[in-house]
Amino acid sequence: MNTFGLAINLNKKGVGNLVREVVRWFEDRGCTVLINEDTARPLGLSRLGTSEKYLVEQAECVIVFGGDGTLLRTTRKVAAAGTPIIGVNLGHLGFLTEIDIPDVLPAMDMLLAGKYFVEERMMLEAMVFRADKVVEHMIGLNDAVITKGAFARLILLETYVNGEFVNTYPSDGLIIASPTGSTAYSLSAGGPLVTPDLNLMLITPICPHTLGARPQAVAPESEIKVVILSRQGEVMLTMDGQHGFSLLQYDQVVIRRAPHNAKFLRLKGRGFFELLRKKLKEDVDRISD
Amino acid sequence: MNTFGLAINLNKKGVGNLVREVVRWFEDRGCTVLINEDTARPLGLSRLGTSEKYLVEQAECVIVFGGDGTLLRTTRKVAAAGTPIIGVNLGHLGFLTEIDIPDVLPAMDMLLAGKYFVEERMMLEAMVFRADKVVEHMIGLNDAVITKGAFARLILLETYVNGEFVNTYPSDGLIIASPTGSTAYSLSAGGPLVTPDLNLMLITPICPHTLGARPQAVAPESEIKVVILSRQGEVMLTMDGQHGFSLLQYDQVVIRRAPHNAKFLRLKGRGFFELLRKKLKEDVDRISD
Amino acid sequence: MNTFGLAINLNKKGVGNLVREVVRWFEDRGCTVLINEDTARPLGLSRLGTSEKYLVEQAECVIVFGGDGTLLRTTRKVAAAGTPIIGVNLGHLGFLTEIDIPDVLPAMDMLLAGKYFVEERMMLEAMVFRADKVVEHMIGLNDAVITKGAFARLILLETYVNGEFVNTYPSDGLIIASPTGSTAYSLSAGGPLVTPDLNLMLITPICPHTLGARPQAVAPESEIKVVILSRQGEVMLTMDGQHGFSLLQYDQVVIRRAPHNAKFLRLKGRGFFELLRKKLKEDVDRISD
Amino acid sequence: MNTFGLAINLNKKGVGNLVREVVRWFEDRGCTVLINEDTARPLGLSRLGTSEKYLVEQAECVIVFGGDGTLLRTTRKVAAAGTPIIGVNLGHLGFLTEIDIPDVLPAMDMLLAGKYFVEERMMLEAMVFRADKVVEHMIGLNDAVITKGAFARLILLETYVNGEFVNTYPSDGLIIASPTGSTAYSLSAGGPLVTPDLNLMLITPICPHTLGARPQAVAPESEIKVVILSRQGEVMLTMDGQHGFSLLQYDQVVIRRAPHNAKFLRLKGRGFFELLRKKLKEDVDRISD
Repeated sequence: MNTFGLAINLNKKGVGNLVREVVRWFEDRGCTVLINEDTARPLGLSRLGTSEKYLVEQAECVIVFGGDGTLLRTTRKVAAAGTPIIGVNLGHLGFLTEIDIPDVLPAMDMLLAGKYFVEERMMLEAMVFRADKVVEHMIGLNDAVITKGAFARLILLETYVNGEFVNTYPSDGLIIASPTGSTAYSLSAGGPLVTPDLNLMLITPICPHTLGARPQAVAPESEIKVVILSRQGEVMLTMDGQHGFSLLQYDQVVIRRAPHNAKFLRLKGRGFFELLRKKLKEDVDRISD
Repeated sequence: MNTFGLAINLNKKGVGNLVREVVRWFEDRGCTVLINEDTARPLGLSRLGTSEKYLVEQAECVIVFGGDGTLLRTTRKVAAAGTPIIGVNLGHLGFLTEIDIPDVLPAMDMLLAGKYFVEERMMLEAMVFRADKVVEHMIGLNDAVITKGAFARLILLETYVNGEFVNTYPSDGLIIASPTGSTAYSLSAGGPLVTPDLNLMLITPICPHTLGARPQAVAPESEIKVVILSRQGEVMLTMDGQHGFSLLQYDQVVIRRAPHNAKFLRLKGRGFFELLRKKLKEDVDRISD
Repeated sequence: MNTFGLAINLNKKGVGNLVREVVRWFEDRGCTVLINEDTARPLGLSRLGTSEKYLVEQAECVIVFGGDGTLLRTTRKVAAAGTPIIGVNLGHLGFLTEIDIPDVLPAMDMLLAGKYFVEERMMLEAMVFRADKVVEHMIGLNDAVITKGAFARLILLETYVNGEFVNTYPSDGLIIASPTGSTAYSLSAGGPLVTPDLNLMLITPICPHTLGARPQAVAPESEIKVVILSRQGEVMLTMDGQHGFSLLQYDQVVIRRAPHNAKFLRLKGRGFFELLRKKLKEDVDRISD
Repeated sequence: MNTFGLAINLNKKGVGNLVREVVRWFEDRGCTVLINEDTARPLGLSRLGTSEKYLVEQAECVIVFGGDGTLLRTTRKVAAAGTPIIGVNLGHLGFLTEIDIPDVLPAMDMLLAGKYFVEERMMLEAMVFRADKVVEHMIGLNDAVITKGAFARLILLETYVNGEFVNTYPSDGLIIASPTGSTAYSLSAGGPLVTPDLNLMLITPICPHTLGARPQAVAPESEIKVVILSRQGEVMLTMDGQHGFSLLQYDQVVIRRAPHNAKFLRLKGRGFFELLRKKLKEDVDRISD
């Protein structure tokens, strides 16, 4: 690999110095570094600035500087091109970011030396049909979420899997999560944990107003269709908690596995259960302070 | 009792004929009937129209024609005056409405004959402090709910009970429910059921993003304080799912038992557990159709 | 198919007449019917009696007369031989039994005419290692459950997946469920539902005495190892709620996918979600009566 | 106070030296110390040995050396006599034990100086009726639990509150918990937390095999009746996880508030929520090691 794209969360403290150090390190080794022009300018790296389109086409690897949020955003942009991604964690415990700050340069060394492996993660795509026309199409890594607005109290969602009627959940909403998303919002709503080597989709109701509703795991090749039956109040479709779209009554949202996987570069074998136990510790510290 | 106020949900099918029949029945017996003027007009009963203020002052009993929603709305308006309430159920299974349509006239007969008893239910009040000034004050029967908007993913709520720090819940929100509210939204979020003869308040987190959060029951005389720590996105305070108020960062919401109880007239001993079992059956029918 | 084994729950009312009718029907068509000799005798069908071993070897299909319990028991016995199974439901709602009593003879007709398809379900195997020797080996369809006795309050189970340490659950026990078992005991303990076309194993803790424990879905080819750390009180391993084995401290229980699938004959496309909705209705009726 | 009874868990490491030091300290100040004779002997304090009956009658205060388990056991024995109790914690985090080891002598000083307050906690009593005769009577502080044995899969419990039919829970069992017990087994089974200043009883089903069952809070003066409908397998009634009794089919277990409260001496205001947050931290450390 010789050409690296950088995706940077400018709000993280100390990110400027870190990125400039990494850029210098790469350039010393004759590598090309590309940065989105809007991000490059405030970092004083305008000479590396390029369009997002060009970056995605040219980069052999995208390095993310930020938390899991920045990584999710980057993944949605570059995954279709098949570009592998690796994250430097500048936030809380990262489930997805691989590199901690002190290890940045040794990690870059491993990248150049080819000492990595590729972990693929299934992604989701969501399409919104309105009067038989597709009015929105999104892809994402964690979850497609259909929720009510702050004031509305309950929405009615008619749900089908592979054309078979499942239920009409009266609820606050519905989460369709990938295995990667099982540790995110779905977990808060009572969904199970899923190891990354198991492909499936989770349908997790949010505050179901009927007592019998339960999280449902379905095969990864399933097609999930949700019909919005509610007449009143705001209903939103949100991908990865980041990209939103307003839904109307009778809109049909179809969610299925995306045609391509996200590709994450991994340097070592960080265990899934070790991460989970760390997350739990962070949760407790957070809840107590 | 001689003077009756009627609170009517005009959207319910057949409500006009039913109300006119009841009015005629009362007038035949020399009783006075009062209806809010905005509601009286479309029913062709303008001659009974009066202001809400006058109705609340004069009525010895308010009869609600609607579902639990209409009854909640009416309770918030009249409970402070100590006026007893009874509901005629025009909707789904009513936890609060006492009378089914076929029994309306016999039930009115029992009211006139004094064949009823009064069931008191504790109510909640919520005050919003902003820069040490009270900017909102609400009362309600079921629950005071603090929630995020549809797009926001997580809010941070710092919670105190009687001045003691409880937790900083990162969550979708927090429900403070009365015993009456234990069968409503709190139940959907995993809260316990509470029989009506037990006074308490429930603090039920909505989709807590930390694994250890649990519903908490506190004494009815407790003062619950919630500080809004979130910086971004919409946060709402909603009373009984009906009356909303937009919250800002650092707003403090204080919730405690209201100084007065709601008074419901009861004609017979409908059992709490029988109602619960009926609700469960309705839920299942609803989920399946 | 010409040779049919029958597995019969003698405790079900009316089972004798039904079985004799089916036997006559098969013999009229020149088919061979085999019945375990212990079951054949009380039904007055001793002439068809045979050993279990012979039955499993010879039968091209085993027809179960009973509920899901009888079917589970039969599956554990015949699945290794690859013999397909079909169930006539004599009990409550059957998730596994395909045929209702009034449809028995038409269903047999479809079997002879080859009008069926085969649905394969993954099975589980559990091995108990004690001082490095295998002291027990079981296979099952629903779940391998490790639980404490009635008096003990808590057991400590050290859990590994593919050699990676997961957790030391202090709990009442642990359920390892197949997709088929997701609608059984695991569901009671808070586990998710799984559609039959998705292969995985669920690790569901029973009353975990730590607040962060959650159901965990793992890939079907995983090896789950549970080490019994508890010193005192009875600890049991139970397969499908039917076959039990007493565990000692430091026993290691290894659970993984069995090398063979169960094969169920299906006559029509009964939907999984339709069955779930029916189960919910039965639950409600049961809870209320 | 001049006469102190000591209740000692001999299994705790270092308990002998600690107790002898405390005895010497009390005797130096002219106080009388009483110890159950079976416990006094192995500690070399036979001269203080007395019968349990005499100790309970004479002691003005019982000091427990052990964990919450020892304190529960002591409370069941002395609460009826109205004797106040205080605990020295020799185990994990104690919800009930007030004093940590380094603070023992200063704490005894406060006791003698009258610098304490009394916290009362409601207790439970359980009676077993068999053919209209009371065959067992227990009291306890945390919970009365009805459970199945290790092998049985499901028990049927017909439950009434104040004579009103609640449900027939098919489940692994049922927990009736006091507020103090809300942080114990009931929590593991999904029950809510209850602050100590709120009196109530919780009915928490254990792994209910119907989807609609939920924890139920009832008024402290309620009478809960559970009829054992199951025909087969072992069913146990256990008080505080320590005292067990075997139940038969059609036994009726009546649980209600005990006529007397437990009295705990408190030296400082340890907050309930602070204890909860500490417990959560301990849980996480425990789950990870």
